[in-house]
Amino acid sequence: MSLAPHHDGSPLYVSEAAPALGDRVRVRVRIPSDFGPVATVHTRSNPDHEPRFQVATKVAIADGWDWWEAEIEIENPVHRYRFLLTLEGGKSLWLNATGLHSIETVDVEDFRLVTWAAPPEWATSTVMYQIFPDRFARSAAADARELPEWATPAKWTDDVIYIGADTPRQFYGGDLLGIEEHLDHLISLGVTMIYLTPVFPAQSNHRYDALSFDEVDPLLGGNEALVSLVEAAHERGLRVIGDLTSNHSGDAHEWFRASHLSPGAPESEFYYWLDAEQAHYVSWLGVPSLPKFNWNSYELRRRFIHGHDSVVSRWLRPPFSLDGWRVDVSNMTGRYQEQDLNQQVRRIIRDTMVDANPDTILLGESTNDAAPDFDGDSWHGAMTYANFTRPLWAWLSEPGSPAPGGIGMALGRVPTYTGQEFYQAHERFTAAFPWRVRLHNMNALDTHDTPRFRTHALPGTVPVAFGLAVTLPGIPVVFAGDEFGLTGVDGEHSRTPIPWGQTDAAAETITEYTELIHLRTGHPALNGGGVRWLHVGEDVLVFVREAAEESVLVVAARAAVEVTLATDAVAGSPATLYGSVTASTSAGRLHLSTSGPAFGAFALPGVSLPDFADPGTILALDPPA
Amino acid sequence: MSLAPHHDGSPLYVSEAAPALGDRVRVRVRIPSDFGPVATVHTRSNPDHEPRFQVATKVAIADGWDWWEAEIEIENPVHRYRFLLTLEGGKSLWLNATGLHSIETVDVEDFRLVTWAAPPEWATSTVMYQIFPDRFARSAAADARELPEWATPAKWTDDVIYIGADTPRQFYGGDLLGIEEHLDHLISLGVTMIYLTPVFPAQSNHRYDALSFDEVDPLLGGNEALVSLVEAAHERGLRVIGDLTSNHSGDAHEWFRASHLSPGAPESEFYYWLDAEQAHYVSWLGVPSLPKFNWNSYELRRRFIHGHDSVVSRWLRPPFSLDGWRVDVSNMTGRYQEQDLNQQVRRIIRDTMVDANPDTILLGESTNDAAPDFDGDSWHGAMTYANFTRPLWAWLSEPGSPAPGGIGMALGRVPTYTGQEFYQAHERFTAAFPWRVRLHNMNALDTHDTPRFRTHALPGTVPVAFGLAVTLPGIPVVFAGDEFGLTGVDGEHSRTPIPWGQTDAAAETITEYTELIHLRTGHPALNGGGVRWLHVGEDVLVFVREAAEESVLVVAARAAVEVTLATDAVAGSPATLYGSVTASTSAGRLHLSTSGPAFGAFALPGVSLPDFADPGTILALDPPA
Repeated sequence: MSLAPHHDGSPLYVSEAAPALGDRVRVRVRIPSDFGPVATVHTRSNPDHEPRFQVATKVAIADGWDWWEAEIEIENPVHRYRFLLTLEGGKSLWLNATGLHSIETVDVEDFRLVTWAAPPEWATSTVMYQIFPDRFARSAAADARELPEWATPAKWTDDVIYIGADTPRQFYGGDLLGIEEHLDHLISLGVTMIYLTPVFPAQSNHRYDALSFDEVDPLLGGNEALVSLVEAAHERGLRVIGDLTSNHSGDAHEWFRASHLSPGAPESEFYYWLDAEQAHYVSWLGVPSLPKFNWNSYELRRRFIHGHDSVVSRWLRPPFSLDGWRVDVSNMTGRYQEQDLNQQVRRIIRDTMVDANPDTILLGESTNDAAPDFDGDSWHGAMTYANFTRPLWAWLSEPGSPAPGGIGMALGRVPTYTGQEFYQAHERFTAAFPWRVRLHNMNALDTHDTPRFRTHALPGTVPVAFGLAVTLPGIPVVFAGDEFGLTGVDGEHSRTPIPWGQTDAAAETITEYTELIHLRTGHPALNGGGVRWLHVGEDVLVFVREAAEESVLVVAARAAVEVTLATDAVAGSPATLYGSVTASTSAGRLHLSTSGPAFGAFALPGVSLPDFADPGTILALDPPA
Repeated sequence: MSLAPHHDGSPLYVSEAAPALGDRVRVRVRIPSDFGPVATVHTRSNPDHEPRFQVATKVAIADGWDWWEAEIEIENPVHRYRFLLTLEGGKSLWLNATGLHSIETVDVEDFRLVTWAAPPEWATSTVMYQIFPDRFARSAAADARELPEWATPAKWTDDVIYIGADTPRQFYGGDLLGIEEHLDHLISLGVTMIYLTPVFPAQSNHRYDALSFDEVDPLLGGNEALVSLVEAAHERGLRVIGDLTSNHSGDAHEWFRASHLSPGAPESEFYYWLDAEQAHYVSWLGVPSLPKFNWNSYELRRRFIHGHDSVVSRWLRPPFSLDGWRVDVSNMTGRYQEQDLNQQVRRIIRDTMVDANPDTILLGESTNDAAPDFDGDSWHGAMTYANFTRPLWAWLSEPGSPAPGGIGMALGRVPTYTGQEFYQAHERFTAAFPWRVRLHNMNALDTHDTPRFRTHALPGTVPVAFGLAVTLPGIPVVFAGDEFGLTGVDGEHSRTPIPWGQTDAAAETITEYTELIHLRTGHPALNGGGVRWLHVGEDVLVFVREAAEESVLVVAARAAVEVTLATDAVAGSPATLYGSVTASTSAGRLHLSTSGPAFGAFALPGVSLPDFADPGTILALDPPA
């Protein structure tokens, strides 16, 4: 991988990440000074789907790179652009979000800037901790609660029942006070946001089949417990987000019970009925307990997502004050046969959130190719597995490992990727996201819907995987229990009660997670910094996250490797921040080596450049002596 | 290029090209029998953006190929699907519209079936002849017409003024009767559809700045001349389509004159005004003579595109009976700042056309990456240059050739492509079209907006280029005059009056065009047949168009080449249909050779397969003895 022209959406390359319609934004591209005789550089925008070219000017020469800058006018909410490099002699090259091309490129791979309201500032540097409330921690208050008929009580140390009819009934009794009692653990770990899977009353331990969105499940402690948890979390600097199901409700939901078999009920328009008696209905993947919402209904919108009195709004406002929502099955929401209301629904959700509290985050579940729905208009980021989770498993799992269910591995089997294939898959599935969406996609090793990564990981690769989660663009995710070294063969099995009694036994793993999380939160370049790949081998990935103040060099290896890079790949000498990767410089070369699977991070000087000039005042700098 | 698994949208692979919502369609994939130990084949559809897998069954073994078949249910208007091949040992491969992949693929590259109303049957086998009325032929009736003030009369043999203020004024006086008088030429050539650039009255020779859509320009002979031309054409089996400007009108258009500087006029809502006085307005690329339509106006929709009394409808119905529309600047239509009404407008246009006469074709101009707007909902095909015209020029032009203007070459220069780059660009820009849109995209060497291809073509390559236009999927286009060997350095210059007096001098070129057009119209495989690439070299392209009755092998070379293929690349022995390419078979190899630039086509036996089975009755055939 030789040095190549580079651009991304980070502040080194873009003067304004959150432009308004009509704004002029300056964009930069860096080109190796020895790349060849570059005659001209242009941007190629595509306002109203018609190409427009702007001339770029060389504005800096530094550390072996020429920096060119152009001004583009943001004419549509999604402004696409690419670069055209023309060499002396006439050869032309296109640079877009998938790299450098000798032939023309398609629009979907353009870089893009978006004018939609920006995500909250805190979101870019957050680290998520995902909690499945029934399995996290049980307070003493739980003992006094009477269980509903559907629940089969389990002792905290019981094995998870992950096959059969009892799977959704097995009830451990974790509650919100239990979470509040363990905030110290989260603070110590260094995470900054709790994502709670649903807390509304339901008829299962996972609660994705809500009965109502109007109160917190009394089995979790009710509304007061949520208020108390969020207040306690906020006092400690932790955000808390909830989980909504916009594609379907449970069949015991009050809206469904009011309309099922009851033609004429106001809630009839909330669902898709297949007969006049309203006996049969459309449901999620044909599962009868999860009837699908019909978003043509304005009354459904009013109650659920639209305006101050909606469910979406209410829980973001005091006294509950959630910091945002993760939305379940966002990919299917509003889609049915010839109808596609997805864009409408997601935009209404976000507009309502902005009215309630703009400082909130909105994440959508879209576990495959999420980019087509994630142009930044509403979802700030995706809970998706195609760009990170699946390629990561494919690179770092034992060959032939099973991975059933929600992780979305075709036929439930983990394919085996080389490092090059990891890189290709990662690039392929991130190219079509605007940069700022990419920064808020969830970098999860696993979730409540997947096996746990550790279960089938190649020996020694868990820190490699989590190291990538904290250093690649995206929000790092810890699924509660990962830091205890838990395993799980599928999503159900992974919903293990946290073994609080075994904190000492898990100390090494907890420390590993803690250090990597602090690596992330302690280095701004790992949050919003640019990402430039330096080397990709079968067993190793090397990239750098770059910012003005400091850059971070990252090495992830699944085996013993030796990598040699030209020193002008990066500026300055790497200083170890994390891990046991060896870096040394000699004879104009940077040598990186590991004796086995390893993750390493190194500090490098920031990228020092002149400020973005005001329009019309760009001056070429003198070349260095 | 070794033999590879293949699928496309043609009848060999898809049981129903025009399915309805809810239909079950059977799809097939062919895999070389010696490809490797294929354990299972699945389709992966994506209804409501959620993956669904179906198992395929092996249904035939023939000529070295295994054929697998699965049934998919069409759940959305655009149904995306791909194939998953799993080998013994677990390795998986994805097959989508860009080929075979060892890693997961993105949705935009899926194959797709669409439920929108199908294009008219005749469209798939049509050959287009593009006429710019002022320059095609002048009848004696033209002498009696008084010219308007803007027009500067020219003699038919004058040179075209292609630079300066007189360019749009130079008036040769070609008219519709002139066209009617030359239908013999078109019949002899073998084309089957005339595309007329605008015929409404305007203030320029190109007439894209219409004054009105209510009558045919009297300078062209008025309404009667159009009726007469279309009747005469229909009697000869020729279709005739018109040209509409949906993005803008001329500034002399009656709607604009009624509203410019006239706040309160009903037509005010037809345009985007920049001040209260309605003095300043939004226009196409800032050109003041072309004010942009505001499609938020329901009255504009009613007058222009929506319903029986609209412009769109009126000219398709008797007595005018046009066979369809080509729509100008369709890519920008309805797009402005945060507004994007493009999908609405194009669907209304097509709905109106279907009401007027469903047996009509709708083509949209979108000269770059057209696929995002061309999912088959309305436009049957694109007048686009990214997938065919520009890669063709790049492969077959003198290196460094200029190509200013509408052809959309970046910086007005033709890049230089190898055959491999032609192939990559062609595949890249066709992958995202549904197959049936791809069949109706315009394969143009040039148009009224571009230089003429011959101007900068490598010696001997015009028949190679036009040979590709008639054999690759798409509607072949002859821009009137190409068959006379005309040249032109830009779009204006290319609008050359047809040199009717020089038919003899152009006899060889006319014969070349005639033979290639008849090659196309005489072989159904070249219309709807599948396309499978066999070899791509720097100087040569080899592919086969395949159907049940007959297949056609195509060889396009820009220099002397020798190509050797395994004989199992195709079934049977090639019989020459066109050209001087030599094909011979020996020792299990198929040898193809040319002594210079050459285009060749060969007949091959059709692909014989069992009929698509009814659901549930698929039987594996016995392997051949």
